[in-house]
Formats: sequence, structure tokens, C-alpha cells
Amino acid sequence: MTDFPDINPQWRVVAEAAARAAGRIAVEYRGQVETQSKGLRNIVTEADFLCQAEIKRQLSAAFPDHRFLAEETDSTPGGGAELCWVIDPIDGTTNYSYGIPIFCTSIALTYQDAPLVGVVYDPLRDEMYAAERGRGASLNGRPIRVSERTEMVEALVGLEWATDPPLRLETVRRLDPLATHCMTVRSPGAAALSLAYVAAGALDIYFNVKLSPWDVAAGCLLIEEAGGRVTNVQGGPWSIHGGNYLGTNGVFHDRVLELWRSDAVTR
Amino acid sequence: MTDFPDINPQWRVVAEAAARAAGRIAVEYRGQVETQSKGLRNIVTEADFLCQAEIKRQLSAAFPDHRFLAEETDSTPGGGAELCWVIDPIDGTTNYSYGIPIFCTSIALTYQDAPLVGVVYDPLRDEMYAAERGRGASLNGRPIRVSERTEMVEALVGLEWATDPPLRLETVRRLDPLATHCMTVRSPGAAALSLAYVAAGALDIYFNVKLSPWDVAAGCLLIEEAGGRVTNVQGGPWSIHGGNYLGTNGVFHDRVLELWRSDAVTR
Repeated sequence: MTDFPDINPQWRVVAEAAARAAGRIAVEYRGQVETQSKGLRNIVTEADFLCQAEIKRQLSAAFPDHRFLAEETDSTPGGGAELCWVIDPIDGTTNYSYGIPIFCTSIALTYQDAPLVGVVYDPLRDEMYAAERGRGASLNGRPIRVSERTEMVEALVGLEWATDPPLRLETVRRLDPLATHCMTVRSPGAAALSLAYVAAGALDIYFNVKLSPWDVAAGCLLIEEAGGRVTNVQGGPWSIHGGNYLGTNGVFHDRVLELWRSDAVTR
Repeated sequence: MTDFPDINPQWRVVAEAAARAAGRIAVEYRGQVETQSKGLRNIVTEADFLCQAEIKRQLSAAFPDHRFLAEETDSTPGGGAELCWVIDPIDGTTNYSYGIPIFCTSIALTYQDAPLVGVVYDPLRDEMYAAERGRGASLNGRPIRVSERTEMVEALVGLEWATDPPLRLETVRRLDPLATHCMTVRSPGAAALSLAYVAAGALDIYFNVKLSPWDVAAGCLLIEEAGGRVTNVQGGPWSIHGGNYLGTNGVFHDRVLELWRSDAVTR
């Protein structure tokens, strides 16, 4: 077991302030940004860079010796033994750029790659999801818990679609048996926010076969601190570098893994 | 061709006011409503009834001789020759009930089942999408147009998942060839709002194999008035009673129908 450092209450306070500042920028620049391609089905806007710069500015000022791992940077390999902020300035950039009003900012502080603090902020609804390791999760300061649903036919399943063709096919294969059994399926288009919805009990099951550290570091901590369960899609331990994720209210977790095994959905 | 009555500007004014009133009720009751089952994967909350009553109260007061076709009522078969309001008090009831902050109110006035006026209101973001036949579409008073995207790899596809098992399978079959070719896929969970996103250029393609008149009457008018195209999934004329819909920016419409034909997705 890792010995985690004591939680410094300022970590969350500063992370929340930085997320709110980024959210203000994102809302201000909405509908007036240039989009660039980062590769197949992957785009970035000027607002992503502006939001990220503001977040790093605020975090650096408060914690000058911390490192950074952020989406819109040439990889500064943070992580390892040190305290590292893992940042997605705008999660849901495609939504943001196309005009779907569903996006968020995700900020986590990790120690040896394990999240200690995570915040996910939706600026359009002013919803701040926050968690500290061992201290629970909250939405706008009120404690949140994963759902108590137990029947698969009532389960709301969330996912986002991978961009890479073989992984998109894997997404279809994993969705198939769930879609048959569940209430219905949602793809809001901002993975960190979808993970926060699992923590808040709004989604019961979420999976994704291709996510990056900045998509998941805050959201997976939120789920665990809200009483849920996160693994990789094979049922093994998750890591922010693991790439694929299954997060649930706990109740449905083994059932989903079992459906995936019996349906032979893996490549 | 139907001879449509002249547009009365009060229709839209009163519809918008009623939608805003319903939105206030929905937001007020959020997180504190009892949910009842209406059948497999179909729920209703107390808030749906309260919102619908308020909408009908305001519309009846202004237009006492108009008829109604509303989701949460024993079917009062409106339509036909008369002016009829087609109402979904809360579109996205599952989201609303589970806690996903994506839902809207949809109100349309139809004449011989053809929409003359349609409004879709998202109360959490205060976004009012409105259209009048022959007079264009707007979002919070600013004119909107469908997207100008032309490349399938840039197209954002929206859909919601049917509840009935065979129709859910048909959804998968129709999604498959689109998912392979498009940018990515969104399922926000409120069909009327997804249709409004097509009108505003945020989604490029939307399809659904099982919708009701109150889901589509406003949204399909919005798309047409914003310069887009709506048909049924076979490519024929749409009707509010038709059940299945394909709405696009126009550019992608024939391409989608062609993909569906070549993939033999129909049952």
C-alpha cells in the first residue's frame, strides 16, 4: 500500500478556484473560437489553451514545487513520486466547439499517479463536483453518493465513443450486451462529467475503452469517494495511465464484467 | 399543398412564456420528485404533471378554442383540421429523474398535424429555441442555421435509444455504419433538445426510430426553419405521427440514407 501524504485542505480550495476561472474563460469564448485538428477526430480550440494557462498560473502560484500533466502540452511527464496536477482545461472540446452545451474542467492532484484531490466543474450549470481521498465526494458542497439501484433494467449506462476505428468497434461490442439489458444509454460527450454523474448517482454504469489521465484522474476518485467502484474493463485495478475504465455504483460492477466475458467482447 | 393559416405572433409569445413557466417548475422540483413507471423503461414524475398543467393553463387562457395533444394525458386526439398544441412538459424525464442535468420543454402548435410554431426550452441554461413556419428559427432571439459541415468524418451524430428491444436493435444497426464514418456520437437523452441542436448547427445528423408527436413537433420545425432537412428513416416525408425520423443539415441527408440502404439495416 502506498503511504499517501496528508491532505492539505488548500489543494481542493485552489483547484476549485482554478476550475471556476477556467470555466469563466470557456463560457466567455464560447462560439467564437478557432478549431484546430490534433489528428483524426481530435480537435483543440484557442479556449483550451487559455483555460489551461490560467489553471497552471493559479496552481503554480499556490504550489510552486508541484508538477503538471495537462492535455494541451507537449507531455511534461509528471507523476511518479512527486505531487502532480493532472489537468483537462476543457473536457468535451468537440461539444464545446460544435455548440453542444455540455463540457467541463477536470483538475486532480496525484501522488505516485494516485489521485488525492479531484474537481470536475461544469461552468454552464455552476456544478462543482469535488473529492478528497478518504474524505468523500460532494456536489456544490453537499455530499454525494452513487446510486442505490440494483436492477439492470433500471440502470442508466454512460459511455463516450473512442476515436480510433478498432476501439470504436470495441465500444460497440461492449455496449451491445449492456444496451440489451439496461434502462437506456447516454453519451453526453464529456467523460470527466460522465464519471462525476456516476459519483452523483445520475448514471449507474460508465465505461470507456480509451481515456487519458486528464480525463479520469478526478472522475475516478469522485466515484470511489462516493462509494462506487472503478476497475479497468477486464476487472483489474485502474490507473490514470490505464486507458480503459469501468466505473459503477458497485452493485452492477461484477454483472457488467460477467456480461462482457459471456459475450466475448474483447478483441 | 396545405393552405396554412397566417402566423399569429402571439402563438410564439405565449408558447415561450408557458415553456419558461414549466422550466421554473421543473427546476424547482428537481431532485425531490417521486417517479412512477409507465411501462418498460418509461417513467413519469410528479413534475411532468405539474409542468403540463401549467402549460395547458396558460395556453387555454390565451387560446380557449385550441385543442391539446400532450404526453402525460389520456390521449385527447387533437390534430386533424384544427389548431392543436402538442406538448412535452419535460422531455428527458429519465435524465430529470436520475439527476442528469439535460432536459427541456417542447411546445408546438400544429394545423392539420403540421407544425406552425415550435419552441424548445432548456431551463438549466436558459436556452429558448423557437421557430415559426416560413419565418426561420432562433436561439434566444438570434437567428440560427444548421451546420455547413460537408465531410462525414467531421459530422457529429446524435441519437436516443429506443426502449422496445427490437427497436433498440434497429438503433444499433442504423448507428453502426454512421459510427464508422462520423466524427463521433452523442446521446444527450432529450430528443427535442437534440433536434434543436441540429437546428443550431451543434449536431449534423440526428436519427431516432421511435418518437412521439410531442418529442418532434417543435424540433422538426426548428430544423426545417434553420435550413436543414427532415424525413423518416426511409427517406420519405415525415409526420408528427410517423414515429421515426432523420434530421440533418441537408448536406449529409442522402449520404446517411445511402449508408443505411447499403448496410441493409432495416428489419
